[in-house]
Amino acid sequence: LDIRLALTGFGNVGQGLATLLDRYGDTYLKRYGVALRLSGVADRAGAAVSLAGLDPVSLLEAKEQAGTVSAHSSGVPGLHGSDFLDRAQAHILVEAASTNFDDAEPGWSYVCGALERKMDVVLASKGSLALHFRELMENASRRGLQVQYSATVGAPVPSLQIADRALIGSEILAFEGILNGTTHQVLTAMTQGSSYDEGVRQAQEMGIAETDPTLDVDGWDAAAKVAIVANSVFGADLRIGDVDRVGIRGVTAAELAQARESGEAIKLIARAERTEAGVTAWVRPERRPLDDPLGRLRGDAMGIVFFTRPLGAIAATVDPSGESGGISTAMTVLRDVLNLARDRGWTEPHQT
Amino acid sequence: LDIRLALTGFGNVGQGLATLLDRYGDTYLKRYGVALRLSGVADRAGAAVSLAGLDPVSLLEAKEQAGTVSAHSSGVPGLHGSDFLDRAQAHILVEAASTNFDDAEPGWSYVCGALERKMDVVLASKGSLALHFRELMENASRRGLQVQYSATVGAPVPSLQIADRALIGSEILAFEGILNGTTHQVLTAMTQGSSYDEGVRQAQEMGIAETDPTLDVDGWDAAAKVAIVANSVFGADLRIGDVDRVGIRGVTAAELAQARESGEAIKLIARAERTEAGVTAWVRPERRPLDDPLGRLRGDAMGIVFFTRPLGAIAATVDPSGESGGISTAMTVLRDVLNLARDRGWTEPHQT
Repeated sequence: LDIRLALTGFGNVGQGLATLLDRYGDTYLKRYGVALRLSGVADRAGAAVSLAGLDPVSLLEAKEQAGTVSAHSSGVPGLHGSDFLDRAQAHILVEAASTNFDDAEPGWSYVCGALERKMDVVLASKGSLALHFRELMENASRRGLQVQYSATVGAPVPSLQIADRALIGSEILAFEGILNGTTHQVLTAMTQGSSYDEGVRQAQEMGIAETDPTLDVDGWDAAAKVAIVANSVFGADLRIGDVDRVGIRGVTAAELAQARESGEAIKLIARAERTEAGVTAWVRPERRPLDDPLGRLRGDAMGIVFFTRPLGAIAATVDPSGESGGISTAMTVLRDVLNLARDRGWTEPHQT
Repeated sequence: LDIRLALTGFGNVGQGLATLLDRYGDTYLKRYGVALRLSGVADRAGAAVSLAGLDPVSLLEAKEQAGTVSAHSSGVPGLHGSDFLDRAQAHILVEAASTNFDDAEPGWSYVCGALERKMDVVLASKGSLALHFRELMENASRRGLQVQYSATVGAPVPSLQIADRALIGSEILAFEGILNGTTHQVLTAMTQGSSYDEGVRQAQEMGIAETDPTLDVDGWDAAAKVAIVANSVFGADLRIGDVDRVGIRGVTAAELAQARESGEAIKLIARAERTEAGVTAWVRPERRPLDDPLGRLRGDAMGIVFFTRPLGAIAATVDPSGESGGISTAMTVLRDVLNLARDRGWTEPHQT
């Protein structure tokens, strides 16, 4: 079965998606019986569209050579918005434009436009979820459409899959996590003697930093993620602004050294819990012992711990491979696409 | 919607299931729109059956007072096998009889009988999977029936949910885990100065030891689990006898102390990997550093690490709550029941 994807945004994640479709496209066809095709890709300068599917490698070449996919042989400079969605005729919108926590645009308009056109949605960009979570889910549910977003909450960490599938029937009391790779990398680098600026630069080179680093270091990215997970697992309707937020700018080398001498480490922890007054969430630097599931993590590793009844504390952590952050996030977009296709009955039964 | 469960086996797990149905039954009805009813429960001496559903508390009382559910007011001494399945008229068989790795009986006959009667199956007992994995899956698949078994592979560890949902589309190269709580408890206790026998007794008191402790300490239980996970994630057809197996009887207090002095710990590790020659699996004691995702675990904690491309190493670990092992395993049986009901479209859409 052919599944047409419309992709908005062709930065780290979008390019990672093209790379992975080139690498794994044949495997997925063989393993799951689905051919994933990019029928449209939009970036700031325009778009490329082809109902037969755009060749991923030539998209990457157009981007590298001309800075935009609209320079592709199937490119249309200036093509955007509704016109783009109409022409791409996709089954699924993959929204991966850069995150904007002010008005979530242009992502929010793309998402709403996709739902109006009966497309399912897979999100890599957090804005729409951090500002309009419940509205979005209710809109999709009313139309019988799916919205998947596991790429937005600390991409490779299987937070949502664990909450949804492994903890169904259990009580989730609270959860906490290291959900932002950049600040974790900066804190680890500073603990090892690097400066704050060097740490930020390393994270940028690893492809894990947001385009605007203040979104990372001031805790906005972690706040968005904790709100999204809390909305998902607690049925809450938190917005990013509802999360108490302290970033890492105030963490000093002396504090990091002191923690280390006590056998602990300072981590930017994001936490949410159910209380009698409702769901509360915060982000702030905290000390954690080294035998804590989060305290042992280093560098760009991430993780989450769910505190549950009766199963206890369930932790999931990721020590990333050497691949770039864009590839890793793109893989989690593909996982959402494949799960969505499976739940819709589009895939062949498979064993893996 | 009423969902009738037939339960075979009323030991730790079966009694835990009755306890949890009493505790959470109303919650599940409200949250998922399903009423889970025990329409039949069988133990060695007979069974109790009621299509309207057996009261969980009175089943626990009958077991405690008379040693068998057949003493219940709906009890039928000597009722077993096909007659039991015919009378319970269940949607789902929950197979939780004690594990037997010789011929997997009586579980295997119950499972085959349930499939013949168009029942889905949820397994808490490992025998059928450790001896007949592929045959069982093919039999169920041919009939359009589901077999769920997440309770059998280190119950609260979300191994199968991560492999199935979070790693769909990724390459799983290998995995390793601490999958047996009893041996982990024994090794931890010995590291802290207890004797081997004291460690085994502690595990029995915690309700995590197999009825026959040699299944734990000689690595049979871990071998069954690694075979089942390998079959599931690699599409293999390993039997328990295909797993190279060394238990913990040979681990000395001196070795444990030596490891500890080096900042490491000895764990009974179970591992499987894809090789050019096929899928191989083993169980054996190994040293792990304390900042390893498995090395940091203590007591009856368990965990698994998937080595994947491109997402890196994904670890899931569980630090259990104080509840007994039977309750914990029973909760994972209920999770399988609820996921199965959801995939069948029996539940109401929910938000968790």
